[in-house]
Order: sequence, then structure tokens, then C-alpha cells
Amino acid sequence: MSNILDKVNSPQDVKKLSIDEMNTLAGEMRKAIITKVNSTGGHMGPNLGIVEATIAMHYVFNSPQDKIIFDVSHQCYPHKILTGRKEGFTNPDKYYTYTGYTNPLESEHDLFKVGHTSTSVSLAAGVAKARDLKGEKGNVIALIGDGSLSGGEAFEGLDNAATLNSNIIILVNDNDISIAPNSGGLYGNLKLLRETNGKAECNYFKSLGFDYYYISDGNDLNQLIDTFNKVKDINHPTVVHMCTLKGKGLPEAEANKEAFHWILPGTLDKDSNSAPAAVENYCTVTNDFILNKIKNDKTVFAISAATPGAYGFTPEFRKQLGSQYMDVGIAEEHAVAFASALAKSGAKPILPLMSSFVQRTYDQLSQDLALNNSPVTMLIHWGAISGADATHLGCFDIPLISNIPNIVYLAPVNKEEYLKMLDWSLEQTEHPVAIRVPFGNFVSSGVEDTTDYSKLNKYKVAEEGEEVAIIALGTFFELGKKVKEKLGINATLINPHFITGIDEELLESLKSNHKLVITLEDGVLDGGFGEKIARFYGNSDMKVLNYGAKKEFTDLVPIDELYKRYHLTPDLIVTDIQNCLSLETV
Amino acid sequence: MSNILDKVNSPQDVKKLSIDEMNTLAGEMRKAIITKVNSTGGHMGPNLGIVEATIAMHYVFNSPQDKIIFDVSHQCYPHKILTGRKEGFTNPDKYYTYTGYTNPLESEHDLFKVGHTSTSVSLAAGVAKARDLKGEKGNVIALIGDGSLSGGEAFEGLDNAATLNSNIIILVNDNDISIAPNSGGLYGNLKLLRETNGKAECNYFKSLGFDYYYISDGNDLNQLIDTFNKVKDINHPTVVHMCTLKGKGLPEAEANKEAFHWILPGTLDKDSNSAPAAVENYCTVTNDFILNKIKNDKTVFAISAATPGAYGFTPEFRKQLGSQYMDVGIAEEHAVAFASALAKSGAKPILPLMSSFVQRTYDQLSQDLALNNSPVTMLIHWGAISGADATHLGCFDIPLISNIPNIVYLAPVNKEEYLKMLDWSLEQTEHPVAIRVPFGNFVSSGVEDTTDYSKLNKYKVAEEGEEVAIIALGTFFELGKKVKEKLGINATLINPHFITGIDEELLESLKSNHKLVITLEDGVLDGGFGEKIARFYGNSDMKVLNYGAKKEFTDLVPIDELYKRYHLTPDLIVTDIQNCLSLETV
Repeated sequence: MSNILDKVNSPQDVKKLSIDEMNTLAGEMRKAIITKVNSTGGHMGPNLGIVEATIAMHYVFNSPQDKIIFDVSHQCYPHKILTGRKEGFTNPDKYYTYTGYTNPLESEHDLFKVGHTSTSVSLAAGVAKARDLKGEKGNVIALIGDGSLSGGEAFEGLDNAATLNSNIIILVNDNDISIAPNSGGLYGNLKLLRETNGKAECNYFKSLGFDYYYISDGNDLNQLIDTFNKVKDINHPTVVHMCTLKGKGLPEAEANKEAFHWILPGTLDKDSNSAPAAVENYCTVTNDFILNKIKNDKTVFAISAATPGAYGFTPEFRKQLGSQYMDVGIAEEHAVAFASALAKSGAKPILPLMSSFVQRTYDQLSQDLALNNSPVTMLIHWGAISGADATHLGCFDIPLISNIPNIVYLAPVNKEEYLKMLDWSLEQTEHPVAIRVPFGNFVSSGVEDTTDYSKLNKYKVAEEGEEVAIIALGTFFELGKKVKEKLGINATLINPHFITGIDEELLESLKSNHKLVITLEDGVLDGGFGEKIARFYGNSDMKVLNYGAKKEFTDLVPIDELYKRYHLTPDLIVTDIQNCLSLETV
Repeated sequence: MSNILDKVNSPQDVKKLSIDEMNTLAGEMRKAIITKVNSTGGHMGPNLGIVEATIAMHYVFNSPQDKIIFDVSHQCYPHKILTGRKEGFTNPDKYYTYTGYTNPLESEHDLFKVGHTSTSVSLAAGVAKARDLKGEKGNVIALIGDGSLSGGEAFEGLDNAATLNSNIIILVNDNDISIAPNSGGLYGNLKLLRETNGKAECNYFKSLGFDYYYISDGNDLNQLIDTFNKVKDINHPTVVHMCTLKGKGLPEAEANKEAFHWILPGTLDKDSNSAPAAVENYCTVTNDFILNKIKNDKTVFAISAATPGAYGFTPEFRKQLGSQYMDVGIAEEHAVAFASALAKSGAKPILPLMSSFVQRTYDQLSQDLALNNSPVTMLIHWGAISGADATHLGCFDIPLISNIPNIVYLAPVNKEEYLKMLDWSLEQTEHPVAIRVPFGNFVSSGVEDTTDYSKLNKYKVAEEGEEVAIIALGTFFELGKKVKEKLGINATLINPHFITGIDEELLESLKSNHKLVITLEDGVLDGGFGEKIARFYGNSDMKVLNYGAKKEFTDLVPIDELYKRYHLTPDLIVTDIQNCLSLETV
């Protein structure tokens, strides 16, 4: 009998409710979130924890006149429910109508499209400054989690926001955990503040110049509303530190905060006692490789930046690594500089990063790492054209990494190459190395790879032929094989291994008996691998066709549609080749 | 009678000195620094302030067993003097022997090549962790200035370093100024700590978990040595907060800290009362433009990130802007996100950034700015192939910015185009825009530019011809003109205006009566502008030659040598063209 939720279609409806009704509403919202997220997958724990605070925000403040800016925005489900989008959570037919992040195209209550962390305070500062320049009124509120506070952008934002001399309210949602268990000295201060009911004088936020309010139970509507009323229309930068329970209302999520931060569809329907099937994949072979290495080498050191689960660094694995592992929290800039210094000092750091999050540390890749030629091993996960949300695309890492000098960026096509590259990278001391961990299918050749990767930019001719050469990078090697097969002529098939350089000798030799070279890369074409091949052949008669993604932000577009749009199917490519060659012979 | 400095050739020699002798040495070092920097140009104020602290560091600690990591490293001159490189400061013939930054190739006392800010704590954390993994001993010391603390990487480093549970010493050199006057809430805390002689409980460093020591006079050798002795071999993360006087010993530098942060050669020889000649340049026309705009538009808002002087935002200009200007300190990530939110909220932000420092904010360009399509106007300064230090190269901004969707990156070739682009950018609301401010010669056509830049990716045919088309981007348009002249045929000359896109219609039309297209860009070729042209023509008979820099870190290589290396002279290009065309006709 979800009788309260039925009546709530906008923030205005929330304002009419009593505390009791709001508590009932919270329960109904939780139920809807649990059912929906278990069906579609998504962020469970963060949204369950923030239900009451979201209700209280909309009860006290007046969105959209008052501006609410969500950090990461993966905790915006309750907000979506209260701002006209509840059907996305209550009606299974509409489960996919709304994205999992704030989106101005969906609602006037969403200010920014956001999916990376630590941005909300800077964005709120800009919104507040624009308000002041225009002489307008209203509250500007940033909602940021404790885990996001470790990102440098959040600090830069706080440091500046504290000086605005105007209304800006930072709601810190402290649930005592990042994605994985918390890391960083700041957590010590949050703990001290919790233990002293917010009264400790040594206060990170106060040290930056903020006024400070404390809410001991951020799931208690009375406390929330009382404090929000106190800070509403305040005329100076203010932090409200509220303690919430991540996963509240779902016992599994309360008990296992890391596993229930983000879940796959149907997670609640599985028997939690049944161990997951031991299927070999790129994560498991990486973990086995590292565990084997640390047996005899105390300088091997694995680092993660807040998302260990995304690369298979399970709690069990982390425990096995012991002191040879550290999670640095959401702090990719630090992670890269830290790894660089470790490598420069004779240790062997391994740093996995998501393709989409490598973006957060460009300057450190260039200055701290590449300029110093530090032999760090980076593993780039989820680098691929995908149907992902626009904020988590994995198609930009090749232009980003491969145009920085000194970094060797490798693209293995199967398990054997991957492990050989990993071993070479870890034991060499000459280059910063990144390996693009294949995304999707796990491929094994069954044959040990004996390539010497110290010979940089040496491509592998997988099948020698003539007329057409297919240079198929990384995961798209399989596509290259299919194109060759479909093409029906004895085309040359090349596995380049190296993203960052050109095998000039090989490319030169192709001129003698090839008319066309095609390149296939699982990422955006602009600034990528194929363009370097096109440049190489610019002054010759060789024709070149580059295949990859267009430079655009796609948002939850099905992968098949993207492959069609970009001509990334064997049929479409073969037609293009035939057209190109027939023009050639005319 | 520089009798102490004469005797000091290594840190070992410092250890033999009395306090009186060290004070004498400090005076001699200051004299050498002032004379040398006034002769060659360089960082004056930062080095004068840190003389005593450097002497004390080498007196108490044992470099290179103890590791000293410099932030930015523009305050390493005294360190170079004490570590075997004093001739670089005392002998005019050797003034150019050593770079202005730490460099491991020069000395075992330099650990990293560094020139960007806020990296030292992360690097020190990595050095300390490697020491612990290997079971070694020794102190690890990061020397960081107050201005560098505002950078997000510094915070990420501190947050993690505080948890290392081992020896790491952060020396905070607090001279109460960044490059320009200080910005950010953290400065309030540093002030409180100074006023309470380090005793205030509300302490930024303690809030992150550090032990904390305070030195009220960081130019007093007794205080320095006493405190350094206390923290030497300490077994936990420790901050030493020392207050120094920037520019100490040079009255002009003490009085005008911003102007003497970095000076041009001969600055001290000039009459300080004579006003600088009012020469028009891209900075002055920008300032005039902005001043004119703010007369009638209170939403125009200029932002700088700690280096206002580098783009001509003089103290006088900043004063004129009043509340329509803010310096956010060294916080490029915040600057971009802040600007994005301002633009999204209806204000008109203008954000100048150095080419080399744009690198520090890639993710914000992508996520906060481009994904949200916020109409920010960014001005990219010093974007060019140059003889600069490896840490301040301006040749990577094109690959960095132009492969992100949605951003419009423009390359004006003269004052009129620049001002037209600036005006268009500021008044439109559709796109994030970056303008590559021409570097070097100030060119004026004398003719108003009437181009409609809202027609994206429309190139301008400056001179229509045949056979060869020269697409000459931005500052290299002048080179294109020379190539055309030298070539002696009626070549087509194109000013593309747009770095970020292809004028497909024009490029297609060139096929009818051209055999060769050459591209000229003042930056690295990999991932840049020309490769996109090469890709476009890949399936055609058009030949393409791309000119620009090789992907490499160059370090103080004279520009003429680089132009020769990259074939960026009219003679070399014309020879290449003739070779290409003669091959074509064979």
C-alpha cells in the first residue's frame, strides 16, 4: 500500500507531508529502489543511505530555484523519484527511461550531467558566483560523499568555495566508506568529528574557512530538517556534515557495503552462500600473476584508486597481497605520481585504472611519469567502444595516453600476449608501460607468447598476404580475422601489439605488394592509432581506411547500433574495401 | 671576499660550518643568485626566500641517502649551489650549464625532473613506500610552498602520505603568497597558525593526521636546525610549517613579490620608475576587450589560476575588473569546473590557461565542460613549439584539447581574427570554446574580420590556386605564406581557423585540381590537426605531408634547431614538396 509515494509527483508534494508521512515515504522509496536496482543493476548502497536526506532537502529547500548539485550523482535515485521521475523506479516498463546519473535533459531539477567524482563543490561554486553576479537569490547546495572528498578537484573546490563570502552549502554525506573501505588521513578527522559529535576543534572543513554543522544521524528526518532550516539562506560558505548508513534498509547492503555499492541485475535473488564460479578472465589471471610475483619479490606493489572491484581486486585478493597493496582512494593523480616515485626508487608498482578514469590524471602521466621515464606498469581496463553512459565511456584512452612521449602503450589480443607483456613490463626498467587489458571475450591461443617486447614498435604479421593489409589492434584483432575471411582474398593480417608507435620497416615493406591498408581500433579515431598510419602513408600511393569510433559522447547507445554507425562489422568493412579497390582499378 | 662559498662543494662541506659561517654563506649565495638571475632571467623571489632552509636541510639531513623532493623545483637554486653546481651561479660562462629545475641527469641529489606544481608530496610518498618495501632507512623530505598546496594533487598526496605510518617529512615553505597574491580558504588557516605560533588546534595538517612542527622564522638557521634535528629520523608522517620571506635580501623583491617571482634578464638594471612601453600585443588587446565588455555586462567574469602575469592580467588590470575577476590559485581543475558552472548558469566566463598547464585539467575539460556543453571561453597561451624547458613545453595542447568532443578549438592568425573569435565565443551559448592565442609575433591585418564563426569547421581559402594546397594553422600561417612564395607555383593557401574539425566540402573540392596537401601546425603531430587531414584523404589519390613537432620531450633545445629537425623552414618544406611531386610524375 504505497499510498504516500503515489501522491508525490514533485518537491511541492513533499512539503505537504508530516514527519510520519515522510518516514513512510522513505520506506516506500527504499522498497522501490531495491526492487528496481535488483532488476536492472545499479548503485544500491549509496541510494539507500541518502533517502531521508533527499526528502529533507526537498522539504526545506525549493528546487529548482535553489540549486542542488550532486557529486558523481550515483546517489540521485531518491531525487529522481521526488522530481517527477518515480515511474522509472515503480513501473518496470519504465525502468530504462531515466539514466542512473543526473541529466539536465530529464528534469529542470538536474543541473549537470555528472558521473565522475569530486566535481560538485567546484560546480556549486560556479553556480553561486553566477547567482551573485546576476544579483539573484537562492541557495546553492552541493551534495558530496566522504569517498569523493579524497579527489583533488574536491579539495580545490572547497579551498575556493570557502572564500566566496556568500551562500554555498556543502552537504557532506559521511557513511564512513568510499567504494572500498576508506583510505586517507581525512577519514581520521571525520572519525574524530563523529566521536565528538562534531565538536572537535581540529576540523578539516573549519581549517579551510567553512562554518560547520553536524548531524549525527543523517537518516533521522527531524535532525535533517532542523539543521537544513538553520543553514537555509545562510550568507556564507557552510558545511553540513551528516552521518548516514550506506545501504540502510537492506540487511545485505548494510552488512557488505563494498559488494552492494553497485550490483549486477538479480544479485538479491542469488544464494549468497554459493561461491561465484571460478571462471578464468583477465582479472583472475592478473591476480594469479601478481600473487606469484610477490612470493619472491617484496618490491612488487599493487595500487588501486578506489575501484578495486572493477579490476577484480577482491577483498580476498587484497588480503593476500598484505603490505604489498594499497588503495589510495579516489585520487588518481596521486596514484600515478606515487607509482612513478615507487618505480624510480626501484620498486615495481602495478596500477590498474579504468579507461574513463585515466582522464583524471593526464598531467601526472605526462610530468610525474613519462618525463621521468619511470617504469610503472599500468593496466587500462574497460577501454573499448561501449554502450555505456556518456560519463563512463572507454573510447578516449588511446588519444589520451598514446600522444604523450615515452609511454609504451600495448594492446594484447589474448591471454598469452597479455601475460607476456605484463611480465616484460614489470621486470624492465626503461619505460612507463600501459597495457590495454582486453575488454569483453577472454581469448586464449593456448600457445605461449615468446615475443620480445623490448623491441619497441615491432608489429606482428599474423598472416602474410597481399593487396590488402588489415592492421587490427587489441580486441579488434578478432574483427580483423573476420574481415579477412569475409574478404575472400589472401589479405595480410597484422597484430600491431604497440599502440604508441609505428613499425616503419614493416609499413614500408607493405608498399611493394599492397594497395590498401585498413586499421581497426576499439576507440575514437581522432588522435588515435589509425591516424598515425594514415600520416605515414600520406606521401605514398597506399590507400588507408581507418576504422574506429567517431569523436562524440554517446549515451547508453546499444553497442550494435554503434558498430553499425561506425562501420565496425565485417560486412560493412568488406563493402568499403571493395569500393575502395574498385575505384582504384577504374 | 666570498670565502665560505668558495669552500663549499658538497653537502658534506656544509656540515663543517658554524652558524656564523652558514649565515655568511647565505649572504654569499644570495649575492650569487641575484647576480645570476638578473643576468639570465629566472625565479628570483622563491630562491632568495629558501636559502637558509636549504643550508639547514643539508646541514641536518644526509642527501642523497636522505631524499629531498622539491615541489615545482623552481626554488632549487640554493640546493644546486650546495650540491656541486655552484659554478652555474658564480661563473657567468657556466650560467646556462644547469637548468632552473631539479634534474637527475645533473646530480644524484636531484630525484625527479619537475616543473609543474603540487607533485612533491605524492612523489615523496612513493619514495618512502619504496624505502619501506625494501627495508631500507633514511628520511624522505618533500619541500612544498604554500602556493602549491592549493593544487589537488598536493591534497591527494597529503591525504595519502598521512597514513603511511612511517618516516615522511613535509616541509611547508609558507611565504604568504602564491605567484600572485594568495587565494583560497587554506590561507586563512596558515594565517591563524602564524598568529598563534603554530598552536591553534584548528590545523589543516593535523586534520589530515600529520604530526606538526612550527618554525616562526624560516630564515633563522638556529630555529631551522633545531627543528630539523627534532624531526630527523621521526617514525611517522610529519609536517614542518616554516615561515619565510619571499625575496629576502633583495629590497625590490621583498617589496614586490609578484613581479619578482620570475624576472626577465636585466630587470634590476632598469629604472623602476619608468613605465613599461605601451606596446600592443595579444595580452593588451585581450584586456582592452574584457574591460570594454564589463562596462555593460555584469556577467562577464575573468578567472585566472595562479599565473595571471603570464597572460597579461597585471595588478592594475585585475583592480579594474573588480568583482568580475577571481584568481583561484594553482587549481586548474577547479578553474575549469567553476567556469563551466558559471557558463551553464548564464554568466560569461573567460579563462586563460598556459598550454603546458591545460594538461592539469583534462578530466574537467571532458566531463565538467565538454559533456555539459558549457559556453566557456578559454584562452590557451604559449601554445607553440619552443626552446622551453621540458616541463613547460607548449606543443601538446592540440592533441589534448582537440580530441575531446564538443569543444571548439580555434586558431586565429592575427589580431583581427583573434578579437572576432573572442567576441563570438563570449556571446554564443552553444559550445565550449578554446582559442589558441598566437605566440610570438603580433600580426595585424588592419582589416576587420567578418567571419561568422558559428559556421563550425569552415576553413578560409586565403589564396586560391592549384596542384599544391597549404593548410597553415594559426601562427604557422606566416610559414605557409613563405612556403607558397618559395615554391613559386600558384599554390592554394588555406587558413583553417578550426583546429577541431574538418571542412569536408573544401577538402573534397581540392581533389579536382590538387595533387598534394601539406599541413603546418605549431605543435606535436601525433594526435594533432594534420593527421585528421591525412585520414580524410586516406582513400583518395591526394598526397598529404604533415608538418609539426615529433612526439618527444625537448629540453632547452634552441628553436632553430627544432625547426630544422622537424623540417619547419620554407626551404626544407619546399624541397620535400618537390621530391613528393617529382615522385608523383615519375
